[in-house]
Amino acid sequence: MTLHDRPRFPRGFLCASTRCGIKAEGKDLALFSSSVPATAAGVFTRNQVPGAPVIVGRELLKAGRLQAVIVNSRVANVGTGNEGQARARRMGAAAAAALGIESELVLMSSTGVIGVPLPVEKIEAAAPALVDMLQGDPLVGAEGIMTTDTQPKAVSASVGDAVITVVGKGSGMIEPNMATMLVYAFTDAQLDADALDRVLRSSVADTFNMLSVDTDTSTSDTCVALANGLAGPVDEADFERMLRATFERMTELLAKDGEGATALVRVTVTGAASEGDARAVAKSLVNSPLVKTMVFGGDPNVGRILMAVGKCFDCRILPERIRASICGIEVVTHGERADFDEAPLRALLQGEEVDLEVDLGVGQERARAWGCDLSHGYVDENAAYYSS
Amino acid sequence: MTLHDRPRFPRGFLCASTRCGIKAEGKDLALFSSSVPATAAGVFTRNQVPGAPVIVGRELLKAGRLQAVIVNSRVANVGTGNEGQARARRMGAAAAAALGIESELVLMSSTGVIGVPLPVEKIEAAAPALVDMLQGDPLVGAEGIMTTDTQPKAVSASVGDAVITVVGKGSGMIEPNMATMLVYAFTDAQLDADALDRVLRSSVADTFNMLSVDTDTSTSDTCVALANGLAGPVDEADFERMLRATFERMTELLAKDGEGATALVRVTVTGAASEGDARAVAKSLVNSPLVKTMVFGGDPNVGRILMAVGKCFDCRILPERIRASICGIEVVTHGERADFDEAPLRALLQGEEVDLEVDLGVGQERARAWGCDLSHGYVDENAAYYSS
Repeated sequence: MTLHDRPRFPRGFLCASTRCGIKAEGKDLALFSSSVPATAAGVFTRNQVPGAPVIVGRELLKAGRLQAVIVNSRVANVGTGNEGQARARRMGAAAAAALGIESELVLMSSTGVIGVPLPVEKIEAAAPALVDMLQGDPLVGAEGIMTTDTQPKAVSASVGDAVITVVGKGSGMIEPNMATMLVYAFTDAQLDADALDRVLRSSVADTFNMLSVDTDTSTSDTCVALANGLAGPVDEADFERMLRATFERMTELLAKDGEGATALVRVTVTGAASEGDARAVAKSLVNSPLVKTMVFGGDPNVGRILMAVGKCFDCRILPERIRASICGIEVVTHGERADFDEAPLRALLQGEEVDLEVDLGVGQERARAWGCDLSHGYVDENAAYYSS
Repeated sequence: MTLHDRPRFPRGFLCASTRCGIKAEGKDLALFSSSVPATAAGVFTRNQVPGAPVIVGRELLKAGRLQAVIVNSRVANVGTGNEGQARARRMGAAAAAALGIESELVLMSSTGVIGVPLPVEKIEAAAPALVDMLQGDPLVGAEGIMTTDTQPKAVSASVGDAVITVVGKGSGMIEPNMATMLVYAFTDAQLDADALDRVLRSSVADTFNMLSVDTDTSTSDTCVALANGLAGPVDEADFERMLRATFERMTELLAKDGEGATALVRVTVTGAASEGDARAVAKSLVNSPLVKTMVFGGDPNVGRILMAVGKCFDCRILPERIRASICGIEVVTHGERADFDEAPLRALLQGEEVDLEVDLGVGQERARAWGCDLSHGYVDENAAYYSS
């Protein structure tokens, strides 16, 4: 099982990106395609006001087959009614026509401002040139789907003879609940649609669904996998392990690049009475504004960890059993502040990765969640996102 | 039913505040007392790691009688084990001795940093002088319980011949779940303990329990009412209406003075299928970092309202029925962005009070919630609260 140092595509996959003019500057359109039709599976946001591409995408995925994905940034095509769905379909049809394939084989995604009409004419005009630009570096496609991300994100890994490549974007409105932001997994492994759906859901549950930047669940969250089979069959367990590893790496890239983030926060909860409790406590910690600002400030206000554990009202919590550490330094023992030296802890809290470990001491279950700190950058980006 | 312009106490109640030396500067200790024992009721945080005063206070309240409350700020006496409970009892005993009453009649509260030992000797030393300073302005007592509050908070009102006075403090770690922060209600109305408990719980449910500054539930939340009976019996329904009105006013004072807040955000949800749905959607809006930063920035990114409604996964939501307005300007209609003029909306979003109204269009139930915007001030205060 090898994560590649530099992401590359599996056999048969290419991508391209360009600026079609939805953004004032920077790329705003990307295309990913396979040389042959692929088995496909997907999970979408549980937000009850989903974007038009999510509504149309759920329909398309029922057939379990895709050959391409077209994605624009800056305008999310959400809150746009029937006309929004019509424009989503036109966006897919434009890519299909340019690629010379059926419309039903093209998934479309949109990310950006909610409640604004999608300028689909610009996408239609740009699609043919986009097909001419198709090339083999996944990071080029990742560039076209960025919103407030500070860098394009792609990860790849080998599993036997096959490759898995995951391309994604963050970076605010992230507490996915079902899937996540926009993430596309491409592989040349051969899997049937049911197997692909199974490993996709299981991998998402422990990675993207345990990520939160700001507790806000996007209306556009999408995680789709395409398996074109060009590398032949693979062992399903091996494939799942590798898919999960690439998703976990992508989860950390997304957390680290959360809006305004200066640090990745990784929370590990052990000793929980149930897996549900472990997940709830881990999520409570990554979502607590007071824990997040403690990390941002590098201020060892460790009592906030007890607060964030204790507000999990429905979990089995015995205060005197709680132990917690930050970057390996024990800060809470028997539910009380431990005796620790503050200076080294302050230094560790200033790092780019902060590990919080909580042992509830009441069982054997565990969970991990990922998030980031809460900084002035988050406030700045979101106080003027619509206008900027 | 009259809310007083300037808060004053009911018959028999006095208060005092001082600096006993827990804080480096500013007052840190307050005492509230009645000339005669009072019927008492209270609700406390649901946080499973409650502070020592909450643990002791729950015991004390079982008798349904109190005559005084002593409160310190800066150190919360949470995560301090058995020794913390012993110190909480010593704090109450010191006030009781100085007042010449039984210890069982004195409730104690502590607010501030979690996980630090309470310097109870300083409180014991200051208690006698505090009793000598007892006087009749509720705002003087409110000054002694402030943490990051920018102003002391007290509200009073008349109901027949009786008066209700509510003294409280905020201002971060506020999503009470059961009660709230520290709030004390004093009245000379005569009510038995059961009636007082009933009206207290019912009033808290629609006011403090619908307030959220930052989704973090304090380990010290306490709301206690003392009724000394000196004004004789009152009509319970009238009393409850007035208690609720004073609690609502205090809720708005707390929201407006939330950490870093530049605006009070008042969310009214109508047309919900159930009261639970109405509450959940209202809470989702006041808690959404992206709605809160929209208000802070005065940037009419109104699609975020749809996002925050839609992430209430378990509520009945039909996107095409959703209508929303901001300060009376319709911004969402039939689940789509309405056609509105942005300039006046930007001006209204800059005000000190921002009203968000959402009609779900699927039923008759309604709820209101209160919160505030998310600003740089919140990040600043909480990045260094422990050290400052």
